[in-house]
Amino acid sequence: MTDMPAEGRCRAVIDSVLPDVDGGRYPLKRIAGERVALEARCYADGHDRLRVVLCWQADGRGEVYEVEMTPEGNDVWRAAFQPRVPGRYRYSVIAWVDAFDSWMHDLERREELQDIRTALAVGAALLQTAAGRAPRGDAELLNAWRARLCDAAGDPHSDAGSLKMIALDSARADVARRHADRRFAVRRSYELVVDRRRAEFSTWYELFPRSSAAQDGKHGTFNDVERQLPRLARMGFDVLYFPPIHPIGRVNRKGSNNSLAAAPADVGSPWAIGAAEGGHKDILAALGGFEDFHALVASAARLGIEIALDLAFQCAPDHPYVAEHPQWFRRRPDGSVQYAENPPKRYQDIYPFDFETEDWRALWAELKSIVDFWIGQGIKIFRVDNPHTKALGFWQWLIGAVQRDHADVIFLAEAFTRPTVMRGLAKLGFSQSYTYFTWRNSKQELTDYFSELCTGPSREYYRPNLWPNTPDILPEPLQSGLRPVFAARLVLAATLSGNYGIYGPTYELMESAAREPGSEEYLDSEKYQLRHWSLGRPDSLRSLIARVNRVRRENPALQANQGLRFCPIDNEHLIAYLKRDVASGNVVLTVVNLDPVYVQSGWLELELESLGIDPRADYQVHDLLSDQRYLWRGPRNYVSLDPQRMPAHVLRLRHRLRSEHDFDYFL
Amino acid sequence: MTDMPAEGRCRAVIDSVLPDVDGGRYPLKRIAGERVALEARCYADGHDRLRVVLCWQADGRGEVYEVEMTPEGNDVWRAAFQPRVPGRYRYSVIAWVDAFDSWMHDLERREELQDIRTALAVGAALLQTAAGRAPRGDAELLNAWRARLCDAAGDPHSDAGSLKMIALDSARADVARRHADRRFAVRRSYELVVDRRRAEFSTWYELFPRSSAAQDGKHGTFNDVERQLPRLARMGFDVLYFPPIHPIGRVNRKGSNNSLAAAPADVGSPWAIGAAEGGHKDILAALGGFEDFHALVASAARLGIEIALDLAFQCAPDHPYVAEHPQWFRRRPDGSVQYAENPPKRYQDIYPFDFETEDWRALWAELKSIVDFWIGQGIKIFRVDNPHTKALGFWQWLIGAVQRDHADVIFLAEAFTRPTVMRGLAKLGFSQSYTYFTWRNSKQELTDYFSELCTGPSREYYRPNLWPNTPDILPEPLQSGLRPVFAARLVLAATLSGNYGIYGPTYELMESAAREPGSEEYLDSEKYQLRHWSLGRPDSLRSLIARVNRVRRENPALQANQGLRFCPIDNEHLIAYLKRDVASGNVVLTVVNLDPVYVQSGWLELELESLGIDPRADYQVHDLLSDQRYLWRGPRNYVSLDPQRMPAHVLRLRHRLRSEHDFDYFL
Repeated sequence: MTDMPAEGRCRAVIDSVLPDVDGGRYPLKRIAGERVALEARCYADGHDRLRVVLCWQADGRGEVYEVEMTPEGNDVWRAAFQPRVPGRYRYSVIAWVDAFDSWMHDLERREELQDIRTALAVGAALLQTAAGRAPRGDAELLNAWRARLCDAAGDPHSDAGSLKMIALDSARADVARRHADRRFAVRRSYELVVDRRRAEFSTWYELFPRSSAAQDGKHGTFNDVERQLPRLARMGFDVLYFPPIHPIGRVNRKGSNNSLAAAPADVGSPWAIGAAEGGHKDILAALGGFEDFHALVASAARLGIEIALDLAFQCAPDHPYVAEHPQWFRRRPDGSVQYAENPPKRYQDIYPFDFETEDWRALWAELKSIVDFWIGQGIKIFRVDNPHTKALGFWQWLIGAVQRDHADVIFLAEAFTRPTVMRGLAKLGFSQSYTYFTWRNSKQELTDYFSELCTGPSREYYRPNLWPNTPDILPEPLQSGLRPVFAARLVLAATLSGNYGIYGPTYELMESAAREPGSEEYLDSEKYQLRHWSLGRPDSLRSLIARVNRVRRENPALQANQGLRFCPIDNEHLIAYLKRDVASGNVVLTVVNLDPVYVQSGWLELELESLGIDPRADYQVHDLLSDQRYLWRGPRNYVSLDPQRMPAHVLRLRHRLRSEHDFDYFL
Repeated sequence: MTDMPAEGRCRAVIDSVLPDVDGGRYPLKRIAGERVALEARCYADGHDRLRVVLCWQADGRGEVYEVEMTPEGNDVWRAAFQPRVPGRYRYSVIAWVDAFDSWMHDLERREELQDIRTALAVGAALLQTAAGRAPRGDAELLNAWRARLCDAAGDPHSDAGSLKMIALDSARADVARRHADRRFAVRRSYELVVDRRRAEFSTWYELFPRSSAAQDGKHGTFNDVERQLPRLARMGFDVLYFPPIHPIGRVNRKGSNNSLAAAPADVGSPWAIGAAEGGHKDILAALGGFEDFHALVASAARLGIEIALDLAFQCAPDHPYVAEHPQWFRRRPDGSVQYAENPPKRYQDIYPFDFETEDWRALWAELKSIVDFWIGQGIKIFRVDNPHTKALGFWQWLIGAVQRDHADVIFLAEAFTRPTVMRGLAKLGFSQSYTYFTWRNSKQELTDYFSELCTGPSREYYRPNLWPNTPDILPEPLQSGLRPVFAARLVLAATLSGNYGIYGPTYELMESAAREPGSEEYLDSEKYQLRHWSLGRPDSLRSLIARVNRVRRENPALQANQGLRFCPIDNEHLIAYLKRDVASGNVVLTVVNLDPVYVQSGWLELELESLGIDPRADYQVHDLLSDQRYLWRGPRNYVSLDPQRMPAHVLRLRHRLRSEHDFDYFL
């Protein structure tokens, strides 16, 4: 007959399994140890009973686990699992019309003796087939039970009540349920990416190793960076990210401030990767050798800091790939390689790879080998430069293939582009993503954007990593050089998101000079020249940064993005939001004065009920920045922030205050 | 390499195509002639230009049509198509990075002569390959253009402007674009069901032919029904639906008021289908023969009325199937067939089919042959009895298979069950669905429910058919017997939805007696006995029904459910809503007084701007029920409804009033 299905007896329907990403086209993302709570809508025809199970397995390798889903009414079924190990998982919802459960349910409602006798005979038949599916022990139990049912049903003296009692034996029923007839089960399967904790909670510091020399004018080395590690650890950073550390091209090298003509002493842009002495798997000699690098990675690890490298998949004209694999680059009609350009802009020191090359398989394989190479050197975090200018399918493959062997590798997408593409990169696999935070300044902008990120559909796959500045972006408000702006932007980044980072030395020192008016480029940017930073300067932000990072470490609410909620506050310059960690009960309320000059104050409103706070009792709020404590009562409380002193409160809410009843000798 | 895709050079990504039903798992539904407007989110890496087309085809048979999608910014692309013929369609969004468009875009921004010369050589190569893909005429044009580009690029005297002018030739470019290089195109495909108009706009009348005899106590016939057709046509009905017309089982036949013991003269329930003389492909002899039936169908057609039959896939114990296909029924241990029951309820006169039978293929085929049989008798509309008690996969297959050969067949799902299952049946293919309207009475209930139906995701596939009563349901408010309740529920059903129906004779006569208190069953229900209806009674609702149906026919806004919008009105007893047909500009405002006893009045608020009405000018509202006209001005106007006179206004809005300027001799 026209297009009948292979099996027409599958009566269960799985309508949806939520949350999902685009109906299951892309994997959900979670953190190891986090509960994956799922809600399936399943149903079947008629009054028969459905059974629904959730099963999961670490990608094609591990054991298959299974848990029964619980009906919550209205065809909603719920279950959760808690993958403890990072990796790619596959989970499925499996549903079927269950003959045994239907029989039990039916029998419960029967009252007439003859009906019950008949039902017992039906049940005996079901138990017989269940025993046939069961291993020996269970099979014996089921057969014995079956025999009892038959005997009882055949006994002319048995009454309805006693027959039902024999049949409605929940312990034995549990055994029968273990061996259900699943021939007509339906299944829907989904993918899940489980990352390690640092994918959700990480504190980044970016520096150019070449600017880390103790002495001005000298090229910094890995050894110089190593000496800075204790300071960075004290400031509470756990990821130290370097721009590319490879040999830098000499052909068409850019000079300081991105000038076209480089002087002989100019060091060039680290993103112009590759020169005669090597490419993506080599280290710029001036920084040190592999031994130095390994020593640095090891020292950092001892301090709880991971080194993150930059993956910039592009070549300087003198990168060895250009000669070895000419087919990986697009040529112009005159045979020359096409450099990067977006007319009228030109980047003559950069050759992009041609992802439409016929030799794409070899290109992909080589690029993956770069990642594998640095994993081999102890690197597990990669910040990917401009991923949106390389083929998107390549990233999907690369990240999947790398994480299959190294589930603990984290990829941060450095893409500042259109929202669909930003979200697309995250769907395709990036573990963390840069955001528009860098340009979101007003209360309304911040509220809209973070409501979308933390409560919209993208929360299932997009992990924001907030940067108040980067070597490419000195945002206009920071160009004011005002300390309250730097402080406020730091607190916002550090409390709005589990992941944040700063382009460190310039941020500590509140560097504010742009190359030219209207530009977001730093003047004398480290991208093109050596710099020297007096990080010991007394007016630096160092101690505030350290304080903020300690607050993050001590408050689980700030270590993830779930449950961010903005609170009404009747002043347009003040923004307030709550974060809450359900497991620990930790609740942090952040209030930031966005006005860098004037004191701003207002009445803040909290939904006390949802916080479990008695609206008639006092509760304490503890400012973790100033260490001051305030007694609040009721949903509306007064807040005032002087930006010259500190533009933010980071308040820990303590629900219950001690009273005389808690005093040791009260009773 | 690990799991590389077959083709890695497909750089375009199709993120979503909206609207959709569950990400494309189920088809979208539209009406023949309706625009299918689609919005795709597509993007690719980098700055290259994307091209996106929408193509569609009548299921595997027709020509493939294609239209270019237009970029609307932010990676959104839009296009629409308008399938004119009912059927199942397949449409696809196809996207690729277009080398030719990228080249044109790039060239537009170039200014330096040498760059432009190089670009022309690049373009010439692209035109050569395009010519290779083109048929002769186009190929010649493209080759000639290519030659011109080469000549101009090689001419040492040509300047930047003239070179660009030769290259940026939009007419020739259009030819090149017709032969784009689509080797690396990506595609996402979806299904669409296009139904004929009546799936969206239909007015149903249900009657039991056996109760249509002119004389009380006589068994009605098709000839009797035929005599009623002109009256039904005058009342504006276009679908006349009969409960099953087949032989009725004699074994375990039910008596009047569903009593277990039938008297010898009892006619039984028409849903207990099948007896010695035949089953689902036969006609109950007392109703007439096939000739009478054909005559009835033909007479109805001449009056614009279609006959809809009931598909009740179940059998009386003496249905010939029971003996011929014993394997289609579930047996009890004693060998007897399991009748329908939902303990403690029993339906001994009904044997359900066992959709888990090993012989399911033959069962499905036979059930489809029933539908095909009645299609052969001129029937194109089927009201399906309790589809949620038969395997859901069966319906998906049946409806698809029937509509593949007969795209104009409409299936109405008579399911009153949980929301997920109601929606599920519509997703799986039912053209129209019963609703909870029957039990939605208050302003809040109606507003919530119809907002969900008309603006929620289900609007893409769920077509409500509203019934204020059915032979199974005499809702509690109608049991009051109050004329304003019957009138209000009629107006609500007829104006809230394009599809509605009444269980006719009882509604015309405002039958209100329930079998017992708290029951929704009619006393002396036609389901179990003959009735005789005095349809000429002067107090019937006949003329109101006729008026309401004429208003529906004359106002396109009431013929579909798009754009239903509730309007604020400051009285809890008054409900008001607007419907608007964009093509004709027809706007109808319905106001209903839900209080059957007292006059209720209030201030109604309209969003004039969205209606294109000048807030400072008068506009006319014309009550199509009373034929009164009112002059309104501004967004707030006063409404008062006396239920004893008429509990509803159905107001047609006329934007512009004639003024002296319109008078023939003014100029």
